[in-house]
Amino acid sequence: MRFRRIPDETIRRLPLYLRGARLLSQEGVERVSSNKLAALLGVNPWQIRKDFSYFGDFGTRGVGYNLRSLIKHINRILRLESGHKAALVGVGNLGSALLSYSGFRMYGFEIAAAFDLDKRKVGRRKTGVLIEDLAALGRLGTRGISLGIIAVPERAAQTVADALVEAGVKGILNFSPRHLVVPRRVKVITIDIAMDLARLPYYVPSL
Amino acid sequence: MRFRRIPDETIRRLPLYLRGARLLSQEGVERVSSNKLAALLGVNPWQIRKDFSYFGDFGTRGVGYNLRSLIKHINRILRLESGHKAALVGVGNLGSALLSYSGFRMYGFEIAAAFDLDKRKVGRRKTGVLIEDLAALGRLGTRGISLGIIAVPERAAQTVADALVEAGVKGILNFSPRHLVVPRRVKVITIDIAMDLARLPYYVPSL
Repeated sequence: MRFRRIPDETIRRLPLYLRGARLLSQEGVERVSSNKLAALLGVNPWQIRKDFSYFGDFGTRGVGYNLRSLIKHINRILRLESGHKAALVGVGNLGSALLSYSGFRMYGFEIAAAFDLDKRKVGRRKTGVLIEDLAALGRLGTRGISLGIIAVPERAAQTVADALVEAGVKGILNFSPRHLVVPRRVKVITIDIAMDLARLPYYVPSL
Repeated sequence: MRFRRIPDETIRRLPLYLRGARLLSQEGVERVSSNKLAALLGVNPWQIRKDFSYFGDFGTRGVGYNLRSLIKHINRILRLESGHKAALVGVGNLGSALLSYSGFRMYGFEIAAAFDLDKRKVGRRKTGVLIEDLAALGRLGTRGISLGIIAVPERAAQTVADALVEAGVKGILNFSPRHLVVPRRVKVITIDIAMDLARLPYYVPSL
């Protein structure tokens, strides 16, 4: 099921709600009000209620949201239910950090393959993942890999994106500041760390 | 000047607009329409016009936005004009990647100091920055440093946050998935890479 006309900003917040719901659920909590969830996550309660309203009714007024049902709904909306395998390209400092990052598992992601151009790295293992030669990047679909993660220098990012598209990935998480050109069927999400830092001074009047 | 009642989502997009405006300006462009800027950045033109409307009038209908003025305005709104120095804590894979990341400069940021607990790293230099002993973290204000970047394992994040607050930082960019407890005067922005990845499958119906 594909939900229509949901604002990107709402989709952007759903993983955060999922994270909060999971944390509470792991602590044995069964129900939570939008107020409590909001306080935990540092967002506005009305925002949560408005975001959830796009998907029908997760909760009953005065009773709160059932966490198991909430987690199931968000997982379904975000298509995280089945889990996803990703191929990482670039095993430098950033790529190595990503390989050892445990946070992906919370959303059902697994970095199932890693590629690099550097022959000295090829054949070695990092956090259990074999580093393969980027030049030998074959069809990734046959390995159950549908997503790509780009952690290479900016100048190589477009070439790597082309190779990943050619290899059959359908979505790319891009850590380079380069705007990538890909076919319309492929979705790119770019993470620009500096842009996040750039909002910080706004919130610190005394700087 | 502090602008009131601006939605966080608008503030979140301003660095992106700034980036686009800078790119065009560097190419010698003087004016840009919201449609062209939107196409370059992959956002909606009406969103740009709405976001800019919070700050008065950047542009004239039919003539577009003057890029120099736009850059100046956004820099002022985000308080990026004077530049900011940050202290990095944690020089592992992620911290090393951040030290060599060139994107911070675009927004006037400089990682002016780096700290680690590992005595083998202390005293060495990474990308020109001396790695100092975290245990000897003194007052950072006297060094002109007002921001902190946390790139340590999750279990150490709160302790490091406490130390940074004690050292006088006013804003923290947090890369650990841990929710940090800090005094109200200190602003924390948390970057959870997995949450960005978690939105990707939503946009790829064929996954």
